[in-house]
Amino acid sequence: MRLALDAARAAADAGEVPVGAALLQHGRVLAVAGNAPRTLSDPTAHAEMRVIRAAAAALGRERLEDCDLWVTLEPCAMCAGAIAHARIARVYYAASDPKGGAVEHGPRFFAQPTCHHRPEVYSGIGEREGAALLRDFFAGRR
Amino acid sequence: MRLALDAARAAADAGEVPVGAALLQHGRVLAVAGNAPRTLSDPTAHAEMRVIRAAAAALGRERLEDCDLWVTLEPCAMCAGAIAHARIARVYYAASDPKGGAVEHGPRFFAQPTCHHRPEVYSGIGEREGAALLRDFFAGRR
Repeated sequence: MRLALDAARAAADAGEVPVGAALLQHGRVLAVAGNAPRTLSDPTAHAEMRVIRAAAAALGRERLEDCDLWVTLEPCAMCAGAIAHARIARVYYAASDPKGGAVEHGPRFFAQPTCHHRPEVYSGIGEREGAALLRDFFAGRR
Repeated sequence: MRLALDAARAAADAGEVPVGAALLQHGRVLAVAGNAPRTLSDPTAHAEMRVIRAAAAALGRERLEDCDLWVTLEPCAMCAGAIAHARIARVYYAASDPKGGAVEHGPRFFAQPTCHHRPEVYSGIGEREGAALLRDFFAGRR
């Protein structure tokens, strides 16, 4: 989660909503990235999507069954869908997101009968830091 | 929808699940693509994601408020989330997808209180052809 939090901080410095993610295979870091939709002119460039795409490209396959995702914020519906498509084994997220989260809020995607892959989900690790980064970012923009 | 169906056919020829999409801005075609997760080693490379990313890159912005998406199959949660993030105005889809669809099935993403943008949605145009492509593809693999 340390790597993901660092990536979130770097995203804030770049003017992006501070969310960061890391993708690990058996403890080996395959990809680290921050949220970057503005910088990249890509509405799909959430931190989770960027590390999933980078890791899949690095491994040369579309499925990441033996990989774990660490992210500083509860994934949205888009990212939760991508996590299921990629067959990621475990998801660790820091802060909850009552507004846009899709794991414990809103569509609760992994709990839907139509969800074809459910990762193990662990939340709360680094929660205070992940939430503080977002709070400070939005406070600074007001 | 003609362009999207052609892209779906090309996807099938490439061994991919036949789904195609087109993204138009005021009737002008910005991007056409087929489903390509295997070919690209990218679990996020659904047809919708590919045209959204291509159109946003072409326009140099992360939002596509003045754009319409045409797709041969009901979008999944990942793609519905991306459609909302991109602020797409209208979505036209051909076939329903009771297994993985997230518009009229499963999470019904656009109907969630946490969904921050709801496009106008029209379904059924080209439904017979879109569904037949998928049926033939899966029948041929058995």
